[in-house]
Amino acid sequence: MRVLVLNPGSSSLKSSVVESDSIPTAGADGRVPAAPATALAPLGQLGVDWGVDATAGGDPTDDIRALLAKYEAEGIAAGSLGAVGYRVVHGGTEFRQPVVITPEVVAQVRALTDLAPLHNGLAAATMTAGLAAIPALPHVAVFDTAFHATLPEEAYRYPVPERWYRDWGVRRYGFHGISVAWSAERAAALLDRPIGELRTVVAHLGSGCSVTAVDGGRSVATSMGLTPLEGLMMGTRAGSIDPGILFYLLRTGRLDGEELAEELDHASGLMGVSGRTSDVRELLRLESSGDGPAALALKLFVRRAAECIASAATALPQLDAIVFTGGIGENAAVLRARIVARLGSIGVAPITEERPAEDAVLAPRSGPAAPSAPTASATNSPAVLRIVAREDLVVAREAARLVGAAKS
Amino acid sequence: MRVLVLNPGSSSLKSSVVESDSIPTAGADGRVPAAPATALAPLGQLGVDWGVDATAGGDPTDDIRALLAKYEAEGIAAGSLGAVGYRVVHGGTEFRQPVVITPEVVAQVRALTDLAPLHNGLAAATMTAGLAAIPALPHVAVFDTAFHATLPEEAYRYPVPERWYRDWGVRRYGFHGISVAWSAERAAALLDRPIGELRTVVAHLGSGCSVTAVDGGRSVATSMGLTPLEGLMMGTRAGSIDPGILFYLLRTGRLDGEELAEELDHASGLMGVSGRTSDVRELLRLESSGDGPAALALKLFVRRAAECIASAATALPQLDAIVFTGGIGENAAVLRARIVARLGSIGVAPITEERPAEDAVLAPRSGPAAPSAPTASATNSPAVLRIVAREDLVVAREAARLVGAAKS
Repeated sequence: MRVLVLNPGSSSLKSSVVESDSIPTAGADGRVPAAPATALAPLGQLGVDWGVDATAGGDPTDDIRALLAKYEAEGIAAGSLGAVGYRVVHGGTEFRQPVVITPEVVAQVRALTDLAPLHNGLAAATMTAGLAAIPALPHVAVFDTAFHATLPEEAYRYPVPERWYRDWGVRRYGFHGISVAWSAERAAALLDRPIGELRTVVAHLGSGCSVTAVDGGRSVATSMGLTPLEGLMMGTRAGSIDPGILFYLLRTGRLDGEELAEELDHASGLMGVSGRTSDVRELLRLESSGDGPAALALKLFVRRAAECIASAATALPQLDAIVFTGGIGENAAVLRARIVARLGSIGVAPITEERPAEDAVLAPRSGPAAPSAPTASATNSPAVLRIVAREDLVVAREAARLVGAAKS
Repeated sequence: MRVLVLNPGSSSLKSSVVESDSIPTAGADGRVPAAPATALAPLGQLGVDWGVDATAGGDPTDDIRALLAKYEAEGIAAGSLGAVGYRVVHGGTEFRQPVVITPEVVAQVRALTDLAPLHNGLAAATMTAGLAAIPALPHVAVFDTAFHATLPEEAYRYPVPERWYRDWGVRRYGFHGISVAWSAERAAALLDRPIGELRTVVAHLGSGCSVTAVDGGRSVATSMGLTPLEGLMMGTRAGSIDPGILFYLLRTGRLDGEELAEELDHASGLMGVSGRTSDVRELLRLESSGDGPAALALKLFVRRAAECIASAATALPQLDAIVFTGGIGENAAVLRARIVARLGSIGVAPITEERPAEDAVLAPRSGPAAPSAPTASATNSPAVLRIVAREDLVVAREAARLVGAAKS
């Protein structure tokens, strides 16, 4: 089945068209076929800048019609599509599985905007517009939170008053689940191990950053929480900081709650520390030209990423592999090497690698079966992988699966 | 020199009298003499409940006079003392070393109450009362933050807008430094290694909990931050949580800033999750009788502690030892074992130990020099130690050192 995947972001609508049958999936033995990256290429991949401010109530139906016209011009007719899939950031406790989109589903997604102010309103507007633009097709929502539905209670509860959880729903959800699911499968394929036996830490480093521990294909710990603000340092988000900082700034009247939220979401992270940019390539250039704030921003980023990877590893009985994915994780070989260099004390051997062209095992796992390991730190070192984030493939496969199941 | 050490806590004033010459100190070769615990016993150790609310402006001079009378009755006359030392929680950027107390110092300590609302007002009131009660002696303040003055910039800066640091002083200070300094020295003594060569993670688990990475006697990473609220789950404090939780509760009008601060400081942690108590012995009893919330509270505590130990290890080039100290760290053998059990994937061998009577190496370091290590996970495993927190000894030694230097 040919699936149109829509991934609404804050500044643009990304999309691709994918042939769902070509997506490798774990077999009954848990082994995932190692399809080369070329076989995973989408039929088409397009983005459009939003013509309206959908977060402010604008109707993006025209943007979606423009997108369909562009695909038509590339030879991909709307009539050839079998389904439309949407990446939705927050599914709350309501959506632990992909779901066929109805007006009720849209309303439920919109009701979660308190938890994901940036993302869910946009997703709801995109779904409404998609239903209007292509009414003949089944539409399916796939949630970033759903992969983390397997978190055990001690992983999703916070050490806050029990009432916050019981009455107000304060719990960890976790995000980037669609990306992490793909990385976990693809790692199993590249390492030729059944997915059920593999223990992986997946570091999704993009404009948002998270780390997830995956035990046999199931999420058992993740760094983002109730909202996508928790955990690692990100492009413009601070990640976790001392809650006492907020009270200090509130109490001394320096910032109010709305200002604090705004600055921690949009003026912190790589942008806030460098004072210049959140673009890692630009920061690396600035660093090499002696820019102190840029160098500091990268040091903080590397440090927090390494800390969160080590932290996530404690949720696993053993660590077989570390996966880097997302825009920074895929492309910033220098930062990958620096992050891994900080993991020596927890048994991860350093990597020295060129930037690979596609998904790759950057360092093999070395274990007791390799007694000739030259240094102590190489013993039992996990594999290190670079995997291109392919949320579109997972959304397409889930959409096709749900539509196929409904038909049969 | 005989030193009276005053450690003002929220409900009581703890104190001891220590003979400073008996405290083992690293020699020129960096080796610390391994004095047995009996040789470290204080001459006297007393506490009094506060007769006044010193945090609310009450004058505790009478409490200190009552304490001196008790020591007198035990044969320790005020006239035999050479100095008075105080443990002070927050030294800000002003105090990176112990300091002889003057009215100006008291005013500066009091001015830091915005950063440590619970502790510094109390310390200032205690110092004022101490000066009034024993005016003939030199008085010295020793700061919990001072040990962390060695943190590198990338360890003390937060990924927040640079202006927060530059204009408002938002940075990591770290706490429990007096305790951590003692643990690092004592670990060197027990492992018979020069302190400059030892890389240790010290987990101070008491009513407050923190983890610090110590590289050759210097703090290089620590979990508490601008305030003592950051990091691990504690008795009644939440530690680090998604900042988005605060904005969610503020935005939906469920709690205001003061209520949030109050609940995260005093109604969270072991107390908040169990709904019953922050006492670990009591929680273990409840757990064994099938109490779900108590069991969950302990699971969360163990999980967060293991995460923070692993996180801290990434600041060290290798991990030689993990030290447990503080009331819970010293006494809760069951929790120590559970925490260490979660560190298997980062190369720490499990411990199976009875509760020792004094400071002890619970598990030796096993390294490449021990090729007969039976299992893969035991290779390169760091030593695990239990060390009794003795902040009084460090305060007494620092006070005696400063007074002796002033005299010579």
